[in-house]
Amino acid sequence: TSSGVFLLQMGWGDLGAFGEPSKETPNLDQMAAEGMLFLDFYTANPLCSPSRAALLTGRLPVRNGFYTTNGHARNAYTPQDIVGGIPDSELLLPELLKKAGYVSKIIGKWHLGHRPQFHPLKHGFDEWFGSPNCHFGPYDNRERPNIPVYRDWEMIGRYYEDFKIDLKTGEANLTQLYLQEALDFISKQQASQQPFFLYWAIDATHAPVYASKQFLGTSQRGLYGDAVREIDDSVGKILNHLQQLGISEDTFVFFTSDNGAALISAPMQGGSNGPFLCGKQTTFEGGMREPAIAWWPGHIPAGGVSHQLGSVMDLFSTSLSLAGLQPPSDRQIDGIDLLPVILQGKLIDRPIFYYRGNELMAVRAGLYKAHYWTWSNSWEEHGKGIDFCPGQSVSGVTTHTQEEHTYLPLLFHLGRDPGEKFPLSFASEEYQRAVERISGLVQQHRATLVPGQPQLNVCDQAVMNWSPPGCEKLGKCLKAPESDPKKCSWPH
Amino acid sequence: TSSGVFLLQMGWGDLGAFGEPSKETPNLDQMAAEGMLFLDFYTANPLCSPSRAALLTGRLPVRNGFYTTNGHARNAYTPQDIVGGIPDSELLLPELLKKAGYVSKIIGKWHLGHRPQFHPLKHGFDEWFGSPNCHFGPYDNRERPNIPVYRDWEMIGRYYEDFKIDLKTGEANLTQLYLQEALDFISKQQASQQPFFLYWAIDATHAPVYASKQFLGTSQRGLYGDAVREIDDSVGKILNHLQQLGISEDTFVFFTSDNGAALISAPMQGGSNGPFLCGKQTTFEGGMREPAIAWWPGHIPAGGVSHQLGSVMDLFSTSLSLAGLQPPSDRQIDGIDLLPVILQGKLIDRPIFYYRGNELMAVRAGLYKAHYWTWSNSWEEHGKGIDFCPGQSVSGVTTHTQEEHTYLPLLFHLGRDPGEKFPLSFASEEYQRAVERISGLVQQHRATLVPGQPQLNVCDQAVMNWSPPGCEKLGKCLKAPESDPKKCSWPH
Repeated sequence: TSSGVFLLQMGWGDLGAFGEPSKETPNLDQMAAEGMLFLDFYTANPLCSPSRAALLTGRLPVRNGFYTTNGHARNAYTPQDIVGGIPDSELLLPELLKKAGYVSKIIGKWHLGHRPQFHPLKHGFDEWFGSPNCHFGPYDNRERPNIPVYRDWEMIGRYYEDFKIDLKTGEANLTQLYLQEALDFISKQQASQQPFFLYWAIDATHAPVYASKQFLGTSQRGLYGDAVREIDDSVGKILNHLQQLGISEDTFVFFTSDNGAALISAPMQGGSNGPFLCGKQTTFEGGMREPAIAWWPGHIPAGGVSHQLGSVMDLFSTSLSLAGLQPPSDRQIDGIDLLPVILQGKLIDRPIFYYRGNELMAVRAGLYKAHYWTWSNSWEEHGKGIDFCPGQSVSGVTTHTQEEHTYLPLLFHLGRDPGEKFPLSFASEEYQRAVERISGLVQQHRATLVPGQPQLNVCDQAVMNWSPPGCEKLGKCLKAPESDPKKCSWPH
Repeated sequence: TSSGVFLLQMGWGDLGAFGEPSKETPNLDQMAAEGMLFLDFYTANPLCSPSRAALLTGRLPVRNGFYTTNGHARNAYTPQDIVGGIPDSELLLPELLKKAGYVSKIIGKWHLGHRPQFHPLKHGFDEWFGSPNCHFGPYDNRERPNIPVYRDWEMIGRYYEDFKIDLKTGEANLTQLYLQEALDFISKQQASQQPFFLYWAIDATHAPVYASKQFLGTSQRGLYGDAVREIDDSVGKILNHLQQLGISEDTFVFFTSDNGAALISAPMQGGSNGPFLCGKQTTFEGGMREPAIAWWPGHIPAGGVSHQLGSVMDLFSTSLSLAGLQPPSDRQIDGIDLLPVILQGKLIDRPIFYYRGNELMAVRAGLYKAHYWTWSNSWEEHGKGIDFCPGQSVSGVTTHTQEEHTYLPLLFHLGRDPGEKFPLSFASEEYQRAVERISGLVQQHRATLVPGQPQLNVCDQAVMNWSPPGCEKLGKCLKAPESDPKKCSWPH
């Protein structure tokens, strides 16, 4: 059975099926109606790079190295001056799937390091069309080079130069390119009768948000909604393609997000986390609970709904299971195989760990969530207008100083209070019972935790995308400055 | 064509189909899947009595008298010491439907005045099972009598005495009684082949929230969710009954709410307004945008979704239209006939007026909403813990003093910003264009407005439910104190 993962940045509340009031995602809603909706599905980190590393390794960022120790509880990712990346010692899903004869392709944003040793084709992927970093820019190619776009081993151009994004109008045809790549790859795999793993990691809903001309101005929601509509349309076309080729019953498809909607980009370029608190960068539900849909016609009963506590890391274990493979036994794997959940409606008891960098901020078990640390961002950053919780303020919860609650965790019941607004009374029996249980899980987690070598500590202008492989052919090699490694600055 | 209206207090975000994370409303979701979901549907007031008066008269509360002038912009309703009620001069939907041979029944909370002249059977209903006021209590029958439950003209008992509600456990079997009443009425009407209007105005989700024993503890959401599950189950049974009797294609059914979820009762007894700002009592979207579903098998295409700006007042005009009747021409009717929207997918251009008592607080036209006044509640009330926007605070928007913006309205684009968090810049062209248009609508509205005699100004302990008709038979007549009419106190 082939598998496909659609991963992008979208909030829990961005889909019609999840209650977005303009209800403009007919294809994703249809995917949900034909498949299974996961309502309690989580990413592994409230920021992109660590989440993606977790998805592909089945391991928490604190294990696979995608975190920083430069400051306490800081989110970190892979900007183009990052020195680190995915360690060779990590085993990635496509590397493992090779054993079962899979061909793997990543389309879109890699984000696990852009230096040669971190290249996706060195970590199991067979094909790549996309970029190593976020499509930020345009840059001047002197202080900072524009981000390259790769086809397999070589750069074929740069964003803003060869792959246009009009920041004024929001126009860019990149999603169409990514769509065509996906359709072509699927056709090719179908023709060669080889199982495949497609990782469709597009970025149109990540600021700077963009959409193709035909979608611009078509949404009630502005540019962000235009991008969502184009993605929705593309997902519909990909699923339809699988059906037309007659391989939909042999292809397991999963749609989810790498972090909650970036409310800091709202209202023009940010999405919705529905009824949840705050967004991207935070360990409140808005930062880490994600829309999630499993689709596999003929196997998953249509219209299914699951309250399984799920994680992007489960896609690692589930994809291996679909290929008849076991996850590696020489290391701790955090993902679980969701097939019993999806095919037999089982509920597997497991906690969700909410990390921010090197700190375990919160833990969910059942319907209870205990916060050991709370922080949205610093007063200093907040004073500059950086607000991860616009319009939301819960006394003692959305704090602008790092508040420790390790001795007396803040406890929420997410069934009665999905918005994390009403902490349970410390004196209640319910509190004591729930915290006792969660404390046990935390102790167990901490006792066996072997943190990986932190990859996101050091930055150096010299490692930027000055001269990616292939730049000579294009005449696009740039001169790197002298190496000057420094601690990266992670303000939140 | 018969018609049925399910009206209760529930928030926009309380249904699975509207993104409630526990997704525990399979029957309502099914109703939506078989019918049409209205995503932009409004009540006429953020409080119960005025909304209900508006539904049954097709007119804004400021016209039909269901408002107060005791203070500026105050919400008012019909507690049992209210002297006023629905004026005889108002024409109610069941009165008008009589001309087409309809039999009408109200099951549940009437709330348009409890004195003899306001009795529902004096205003067009043929049958009644339920209460004139909210099921608050228990009272001591000396300072304050317990609320009576009527069958037709006579009281048959009182809440807490003859109709038990256990405030400790939340157990009460009232929804089951109301369900059975509905099923029996429908059976009777089907047998007699007479068209009917059923107004199922149940109150299990209004504090004090209750559910029957079989539903207690069955929801992820606590007692409130148990009540929602029981209502959901009941709606399913009623729709199923229509189908079993073979009259579903002759019965138009509408489900909606009289105001947004009461966040003040959260988390144990309050619902969810999804991504919207604040709740009941406010003129933000959370107070007035409502879940709404139209169901009419064989007529409404399944799975329909409408962005028509709709109102509970439209149920008046639509029900008349279904009966082949015209609305009265001697007065201003605010409701519109939704049949072209429902059957032909039309979109009718019309504004939504958001009132709080005697003040026009806000107006929506298209995707724009202009606030002329903002107020959640006073600092004094807020200081007492009365919070209509828990965890939400938007600077200059969720104000605790009455803020006038009549010269420079606060403008929101509800497509990009459904949560009313980001007012548009006053200097923008978009602002000027939208406000110009809305100002025209307001001028027109004000120029033709003839306010009704305010009914909710005077309170008097002597008018309470001391000796409702039928009390003698039950030995339940109580002695009224001397009349002492006073201005009612409406703090918000």
